[in-house]
Amino acid sequence: MERIIYVEETLRLTKDLIRFRSTRANPDEINRCADFIESYLKKYRIEYQRLNYRQTPSILVAPQRDTVPVMLMTHMDVVEGPDELFEPYEKDGKLYGRGSIDDKYAVALSLVMLKENLQRLHKQGDRQSDLPFGILVTGDEEIGGANGAKKALPRVKADFCIALDGGGIDKIVIKEKGIVHLKVISRGKSGHAARPWLGVNAIENLIADYQVLRTYFKAKAPDHWHRTLNFSRIHAGKSINQIPDYAEAVFDVRYTENDDIEELVEKVRDDISGQIIVEKKEPMFVGGDSPYLDLLLAIAKGTRVGCEHGASDARFLSQSETKGIVWGADGDMSQHSANEYVHINSIARLYELLDRFMRKVPEIDRW
Amino acid sequence: MERIIYVEETLRLTKDLIRFRSTRANPDEINRCADFIESYLKKYRIEYQRLNYRQTPSILVAPQRDTVPVMLMTHMDVVEGPDELFEPYEKDGKLYGRGSIDDKYAVALSLVMLKENLQRLHKQGDRQSDLPFGILVTGDEEIGGANGAKKALPRVKADFCIALDGGGIDKIVIKEKGIVHLKVISRGKSGHAARPWLGVNAIENLIADYQVLRTYFKAKAPDHWHRTLNFSRIHAGKSINQIPDYAEAVFDVRYTENDDIEELVEKVRDDISGQIIVEKKEPMFVGGDSPYLDLLLAIAKGTRVGCEHGASDARFLSQSETKGIVWGADGDMSQHSANEYVHINSIARLYELLDRFMRKVPEIDRW
Repeated sequence: MERIIYVEETLRLTKDLIRFRSTRANPDEINRCADFIESYLKKYRIEYQRLNYRQTPSILVAPQRDTVPVMLMTHMDVVEGPDELFEPYEKDGKLYGRGSIDDKYAVALSLVMLKENLQRLHKQGDRQSDLPFGILVTGDEEIGGANGAKKALPRVKADFCIALDGGGIDKIVIKEKGIVHLKVISRGKSGHAARPWLGVNAIENLIADYQVLRTYFKAKAPDHWHRTLNFSRIHAGKSINQIPDYAEAVFDVRYTENDDIEELVEKVRDDISGQIIVEKKEPMFVGGDSPYLDLLLAIAKGTRVGCEHGASDARFLSQSETKGIVWGADGDMSQHSANEYVHINSIARLYELLDRFMRKVPEIDRW
Repeated sequence: MERIIYVEETLRLTKDLIRFRSTRANPDEINRCADFIESYLKKYRIEYQRLNYRQTPSILVAPQRDTVPVMLMTHMDVVEGPDELFEPYEKDGKLYGRGSIDDKYAVALSLVMLKENLQRLHKQGDRQSDLPFGILVTGDEEIGGANGAKKALPRVKADFCIALDGGGIDKIVIKEKGIVHLKVISRGKSGHAARPWLGVNAIENLIADYQVLRTYFKAKAPDHWHRTLNFSRIHAGKSINQIPDYAEAVFDVRYTENDDIEELVEKVRDDISGQIIVEKKEPMFVGGDSPYLDLLLAIAKGTRVGCEHGASDARFLSQSETKGIVWGADGDMSQHSANEYVHINSIARLYELLDRFMRKVPEIDRW
């Protein structure tokens, strides 16, 4: 009976959260969504902090001011979608809607689990400071986390962080590839299109440079655990009757622990005629060994560890050398799609496993 | 003494015309420039028609309503430039300014030559209908001539048309390449940039199609009289973390009488994976043999005939099968540049040759 109560509450709360159109384009809705979470915490007299960096709200609940054994991290912002995606509905054991799997079910789950655990502590005469875990809900994961996870995580020293934002019941993610954004700029010499032999075409130069760049991404590894290159964008040329003298392209590169990106960029720089610029470099997420992970794997029989190609806010754990994982319910890779959903029974299973885990956390020697 | 008077007047009038910023962005200025030309014609009691197609003015002076032995065609519109280019000045025997060589000196020259010839006829007791030539000044040559030359030329049947808009004292242009604008559209399958193996990149498909397209433009001929391909513009890709599913590029093709463009496009269509679309096809200008050309070459000793790679309004002569040439003063290819100029002595020489030619025109058997 207990299971049904907290699953029902988690579902109800998830639906409430989905109705907030908390996208990048609607910062007010992200703030209203944070207000809603605050009202939930206030209702249950849970102490929290509302953080705010560059108009991006985060909600942080920690048992004590500075340290916490386990942190559950989720996010309330979502990617854009048509209107109907913001009206949730259930069908065939799935909950549909924008944010259902990414990541509002997880916000709801962490809130309910927090409240349930706190009420249990209160019954035992204990207080919030005796909680084995805290929660962090951020507001900008979908646009890079620079004012959410990146700023909030350093405020509380956690022994172990569970980013409920990926993987699946059967797969705990312990590594995610890093991200590099490269820009290549090629130049030429303008002139009239009727006399191409008098100019130098910057688009042709850029294509030649790309043919060189791609040769650096030929290596293959099992399960695609190798660096990859995506030709994301190119814009060049103005008038149709002109030889273009400027062309630029941007590339999304994903890398593994086997890659030395700085060295690679230097080699490419020597090899191409244009300029190459590293516009952004984000670290890999590497969770690391931990007694918390061992405990979780002992509880979640049949769950194995694995790697993920996409990146998440978990990469910010590397800055504070916090151990962690990325884990979550099952959504069959429907995040960001027009058909986003979460399997309801996987929410129940996740809750159960996490709850058993949290009860055992106090037995772990903290170091 | 006579030479100095009409050259001085042509120069003065050219400077007045340069001061009108008659660019595509300023249709009012093109109309004010047409008003100025009207006032000149009125002053000398010359009969004219002001044509207007889609807000584009042209000025037409014909000796008789329907036919004319020779038509002098020029244009009053210019390409854009910084403010200072619209303030003409003379230096080292050159007149500088936007439109100095392209094509306001020619507008001025045709007006002065018209007035001088008419005054001579009046002294002999003859009238405007006895003129051996007419003039046409259009307002949209720089943007394709669709509402200028294309519409005005069919209104008067000329035996021979001289487009004073290219070549040079020593070179009469009797052929210009034709223009084709091609668009290539490639498609792919979108997906997340972290997993490029799950999608199909439209930019890569487009580059592959371009590599095929360019093989059709390998042939060479003396003096570059072969078809050419210019990669003018490409725009593709939105978010950096997406595999683009759409890419498009436009190409400026120039062709000669040795090319069958329809056949070429069909072959390319079979060879590439994307779509190929002919967005525009403009005919070549082929002047053809003519006793008027023979006469002009007999008068202008040392002037030879040749070909031009760029196109001009002269291509509209082909629609009415009018014979013609492109000719003009010397500007050392400075048209459209920030340093546009015309050699003043070449204006004098052009005037003298044309004037001698016009006096002989009545001797030619019209057929």
